[in-house]
Amino acid sequence: MPAARPTAAMLVIGDEILSGRTRDANMHHLAGRLTEAGITLGEVRVVSDDHDAIVAAVRALSEAWDTVFTSGGIGPTHDDITADAIGAAFGAAVDVREDARTLLAEHYARTGSELNAARLRMARIPEGATLIDNPVSIAPGFTIRNVHVMAGVPAVFQAMVASVLPTLTGGVPLTSTSTRIDRGEGDIAAPLGALAQDFPDLSMGSYPFQKDGKFGTNVVIRGEDAARVEAATARLKALL
Amino acid sequence: MPAARPTAAMLVIGDEILSGRTRDANMHHLAGRLTEAGITLGEVRVVSDDHDAIVAAVRALSEAWDTVFTSGGIGPTHDDITADAIGAAFGAAVDVREDARTLLAEHYARTGSELNAARLRMARIPEGATLIDNPVSIAPGFTIRNVHVMAGVPAVFQAMVASVLPTLTGGVPLTSTSTRIDRGEGDIAAPLGALAQDFPDLSMGSYPFQKDGKFGTNVVIRGEDAARVEAATARLKALL
Repeated sequence: MPAARPTAAMLVIGDEILSGRTRDANMHHLAGRLTEAGITLGEVRVVSDDHDAIVAAVRALSEAWDTVFTSGGIGPTHDDITADAIGAAFGAAVDVREDARTLLAEHYARTGSELNAARLRMARIPEGATLIDNPVSIAPGFTIRNVHVMAGVPAVFQAMVASVLPTLTGGVPLTSTSTRIDRGEGDIAAPLGALAQDFPDLSMGSYPFQKDGKFGTNVVIRGEDAARVEAATARLKALL
Repeated sequence: MPAARPTAAMLVIGDEILSGRTRDANMHHLAGRLTEAGITLGEVRVVSDDHDAIVAAVRALSEAWDTVFTSGGIGPTHDDITADAIGAAFGAAVDVREDARTLLAEHYARTGSELNAARLRMARIPEGATLIDNPVSIAPGFTIRNVHVMAGVPAVFQAMVASVLPTLTGGVPLTSTSTRIDRGEGDIAAPLGALAQDFPDLSMGSYPFQKDGKFGTNVVIRGEDAARVEAATARLKALL
């Protein structure tokens, strides 16, 4: 990949993923949106609802990648510790912020619920952060430095991704082709390897599958230059 | 969690997950099997098909956790670089091994395919590793130190997990209950937080959901002592 392409990482905060209770959906959603935006998702980490683990992971990812997205742990209950951990990671104090409190107060007044102490926790934002709009359930996410802190509930996570993405500088979107070949990976590995050497500017991945007892391979060719991707795909089809 | 409970981490090696092409299935499968076995999955990382990224992640996870599982990158094509990266991570030479070559030779003789140079790559195993049985497509995984290196194709990954799990020392399986409460997280946060303080030996997670325009919360209580889990669940139901 050219160095100019912007990069991102994701931190999933959630015991429910690590225990097998929930199958991840947010990572898959974000990966697709970033690819469309021309941003390379370079790494994902999943950690438990543990203060020190979140602090260490946020620091490491924030240093290594252009942008970081987190999901999970910003609700009103005792296990929602993300805001404090993010604050600790960057040495930022965390307290109830008036603009966030106002958003919540108006929302709960409208819906007839009480803005109790638990719900007020969702207005606790690290100093220096900006809020991320949450059109689904109002309680905001926030951005501090290069880290976007978002909810774990998929509908809310997706809405926050939609709020944040237009603020990021995207890269040239990649063009990709997927070619299904009815031969096993072992049969096509040599010509595919040679093709990959002829097109060092493209990425070529091979994904074996098994269907009706037969082996096949999907070959995905990806790159910034659509003409090169087409040329390589044509060569692949002629070869095999 | 008591310190005696064995821990594990997973490293997913795969551009196809990070690009959004494929939704992860292996992490979810492994998380469930480990929970059943009484082993805590503490961290997952997803990295791209990049030598240095794999080396760094394997070393970090191998040091931090009792056991590490990797998935992906052990096939016959040019993008299958896991065996070399794992070897590099532990300073172990990687070469074709006779027992692995024999497995492949017998398999391809049986199925009428050629054991060509590409397929022979799948017999390249780091020095000092032991093989992991692959009843699905024969090409073995391998175990070196505390790292189990397995295929990314879900059917093969699952078969290898089944081969490896009986060799691990499990912990006391956790008992868990899931209680559906038809109130939003913000309404139950205070009593739930108090309950969590009364049962510090248990983990209590709250997972909000939205259905037919109403908010609700699933509360998951988890612990080693089934009687304590039952007692806390009864208290939860009486409270709310």
